[in-house]
Amino acid sequence: MNLSPLLQELISALRALPGVGPKSAQRMALHLLERDRRGALSLSVALEQAVENIGECRRCRNLSEREICAVCEDGTRDASVICVLESPVDLMAVEQTGGFNGVYFVLKGHLSPIDGIGPEELGLEQLFARVDQGNVSELILATNPTVEGEATAHYIAEQLQQSSVNITRIAHGVPVGGELEFVDGGTLAHAFAGRRSLKRSADV
Amino acid sequence: MNLSPLLQELISALRALPGVGPKSAQRMALHLLERDRRGALSLSVALEQAVENIGECRRCRNLSEREICAVCEDGTRDASVICVLESPVDLMAVEQTGGFNGVYFVLKGHLSPIDGIGPEELGLEQLFARVDQGNVSELILATNPTVEGEATAHYIAEQLQQSSVNITRIAHGVPVGGELEFVDGGTLAHAFAGRRSLKRSADV
Repeated sequence: MNLSPLLQELISALRALPGVGPKSAQRMALHLLERDRRGALSLSVALEQAVENIGECRRCRNLSEREICAVCEDGTRDASVICVLESPVDLMAVEQTGGFNGVYFVLKGHLSPIDGIGPEELGLEQLFARVDQGNVSELILATNPTVEGEATAHYIAEQLQQSSVNITRIAHGVPVGGELEFVDGGTLAHAFAGRRSLKRSADV
Repeated sequence: MNLSPLLQELISALRALPGVGPKSAQRMALHLLERDRRGALSLSVALEQAVENIGECRRCRNLSEREICAVCEDGTRDASVICVLESPVDLMAVEQTGGFNGVYFVLKGHLSPIDGIGPEELGLEQLFARVDQGNVSELILATNPTVEGEATAHYIAEQLQQSSVNITRIAHGVPVGGELEFVDGGTLAHAFAGRRSLKRSADV
């Protein structure tokens, strides 16, 4: 095909985006060139700026352009409650609920010996050191409810068995707004096992 | 939410892409930063290069980084057959079939008096001048089969009624691989009106 080489380059560069195949890349490139050249330029600048300046927070390993991220630096947040997550996407999801006021620790993955990902790659030493310093009251393990996520949560809980810190796991159960009929067996079993009393001041 | 400002900027810049909402933009930004920083940088460069260098071909109005695009310059193509299209995307679609060996003329839109788009905006003067020069044998009107596309094709045919050039319209009918059952009435009517004889050397 007799395409302009720069256009061809743009189309193939757009395929670096997740979920963008050849057809969408073509549509995106033409849209930008025909209707939104200003948007294309801002995107170019934003990409360069982000790649060059965004590293990771030294304390929680979240994406941040400063050494210590905004969440870790925020004095109004309870630094004694640490939520342990697998990735920055999960952190965003939790932040967007607006319901959590502690701080985070991002593992950037989960234990996966087959891929060579052990405790070291997940920064667990750093997490354990923070717990050892003694200012942590609770560690909320919010890794994904997958086999690897569960294994990672288990490993962390195991390692901190001797410490005085409270270790909790987020609840698994029926999603709000879901229907029992469509929930899988494993989730239902978790929902029953994790049932709570509705009588005041009493838990099953 | 306590997001890194550069990350936030990147997410909103990604929304310039067609079909990308806030969730996809977030996923794209995190994917690039966590897994494909090199891809992000190439995309940044490709965007800048494309926006700065790609203009339109002086002859056919297609996107091109040179004054005359590769198709118009290609000596092996039949410059006497001009395919008139609404947009560069359509041109790409036709080029990808590999079955057309003429040249193109891109209108970059269709007649739409309500939006202030008349013959001038579509470069029709330029097209008619090219026909008047006398080296054109056929003009294939391949505007979209929409009301505006049909009106545009009609207008062009009307204006060139006096010239000796052959003016054709692409066939409308049942898409190859489609099923009659699911084809709308208008298309079916076109398919019947445009039927062709299967006997050798005879058309209905």
